[in-house]
Amino acid sequence: MSEQELLSRLSLNQITTERWSLKEAAEGCARAGIGWIAPWRHKVQEAGLAESKRYIRDNGLRVSSLCRGGMFPAATAGEREARLDDNRRAVEEAAELGADVLVLVCGPSPTPDIAQAREWVREGIEKLAPFAKQHGVKLAIEPLHPMYAAERSVIVTLAQANSLAERFSPDEVGVVVDVFHVWWDPELYGEIKRAGSRILGFHVSDWIVPTPDMLLGRGMMGDGVIEIRKIRSAVEAAGYRGPIEVEIFNQAIWDMQGDEALALTKERFLKHV
Amino acid sequence: MSEQELLSRLSLNQITTERWSLKEAAEGCARAGIGWIAPWRHKVQEAGLAESKRYIRDNGLRVSSLCRGGMFPAATAGEREARLDDNRRAVEEAAELGADVLVLVCGPSPTPDIAQAREWVREGIEKLAPFAKQHGVKLAIEPLHPMYAAERSVIVTLAQANSLAERFSPDEVGVVVDVFHVWWDPELYGEIKRAGSRILGFHVSDWIVPTPDMLLGRGMMGDGVIEIRKIRSAVEAAGYRGPIEVEIFNQAIWDMQGDEALALTKERFLKHV
Repeated sequence: MSEQELLSRLSLNQITTERWSLKEAAEGCARAGIGWIAPWRHKVQEAGLAESKRYIRDNGLRVSSLCRGGMFPAATAGEREARLDDNRRAVEEAAELGADVLVLVCGPSPTPDIAQAREWVREGIEKLAPFAKQHGVKLAIEPLHPMYAAERSVIVTLAQANSLAERFSPDEVGVVVDVFHVWWDPELYGEIKRAGSRILGFHVSDWIVPTPDMLLGRGMMGDGVIEIRKIRSAVEAAGYRGPIEVEIFNQAIWDMQGDEALALTKERFLKHV
Repeated sequence: MSEQELLSRLSLNQITTERWSLKEAAEGCARAGIGWIAPWRHKVQEAGLAESKRYIRDNGLRVSSLCRGGMFPAATAGEREARLDDNRRAVEEAAELGADVLVLVCGPSPTPDIAQAREWVREGIEKLAPFAKQHGVKLAIEPLHPMYAAERSVIVTLAQANSLAERFSPDEVGVVVDVFHVWWDPELYGEIKRAGSRILGFHVSDWIVPTPDMLLGRGMMGDGVIEIRKIRSAVEAAGYRGPIEVEIFNQAIWDMQGDEALALTKERFLKHV
């Protein structure tokens, strides 16, 4: 793949430039020649849905995914229904923004009974999937790193995400492969192969050593130990040729001037992804 | 199991009272009526091997395991041989102290090639196992939490530890189940069952929410979200009836007066393990 082809797949996951509004991020992408963006819902809300759509369109961008739905487990049936309602809004927003894919961060457990929480995730996706299909939006289960099991997601391995996704048709539910979340997994390459056409997104960043912070310690590609290119090759061998999101939660990068962060992102993307 | 029976299985993993020397820890256990201890090698070294043995014997203690061997991967064959030599010393120390079990923290990778590092772990255990057998010491592979994959151990799931252990006879190589490291794993209960008679140790602590620190944020049992009793039941159903080590890396507990930390440990052990 030529540099130009690879670069044409780069998508800015909006959290990487956390200080920018959606308008600023869309304009920043246009200035940097980046053709894809993955907006976050709180930024869309801040800007307004119609305006968000306009900023994206006016800057010639396509939307790789909307971040994020999920957060299914809750202690009462009423709360779980409220979460589901919020997920339906997320699907509608994704459809309106022209995103094919809604990323699901499935949520932590409200009690120590993690098996029960995993059942609630399954139920939530079962209830959401037909609604998403009607809106032309695919649900992409993103397994998070096990260190987030108690606070963000009870879905923690690609194997688990695959098993969950396989309960549905491949044009309804798939998975996201995020190198930060899965690089440690002894089953990684087998599970990427297994995911095949269900891979709906590929996210890159790096694992810094020593890790400065559990949440804000993700690294720019090339600053850590993840075999990003090897994982990308596996994802491509499995059939994925879509956009590649750069999604970095990192205080130092958030503190950079946005255009500089994008310039660095492009440079490292070409060199390490 | 009666409270008395359960309490008779409590073992103080020495890192829980990190400020104490081995002599102080052994005397502390005797005062608290704790019958088992798991010394750390740097504390044994500090005290001297013969003296360590005497402190343990004079306080009427048994040794549940020696912490720790492992750290097999290294960039050159020479360095790997040096690591192996150090592991042989660890086996000898374990034998001298009357420990049946040497815990293996297998080590991080010296390069991004994690698959290669995992091969070096396998090679290291293959070379160490006959020596350990001669000394009457079993090797116990401890899978660490995946958040330590880059800095402490490329062996990160119980499935992986089981697969590695199964290359050897069950009276040579087994596994340690540490709730902190494995609680998140969707395959946990199946892998505990699979481990069966290979379970050579069971370690308890808790996962605090929010997690204050990647290394020093482990909690006292009952302060977190791990279903410790459920996991203990599974480990017992698989056949393990040996000592249960309390192993807590936590700055606040390290800052407590040692006897108070042991009193709290006993109380929480009875209530939550």
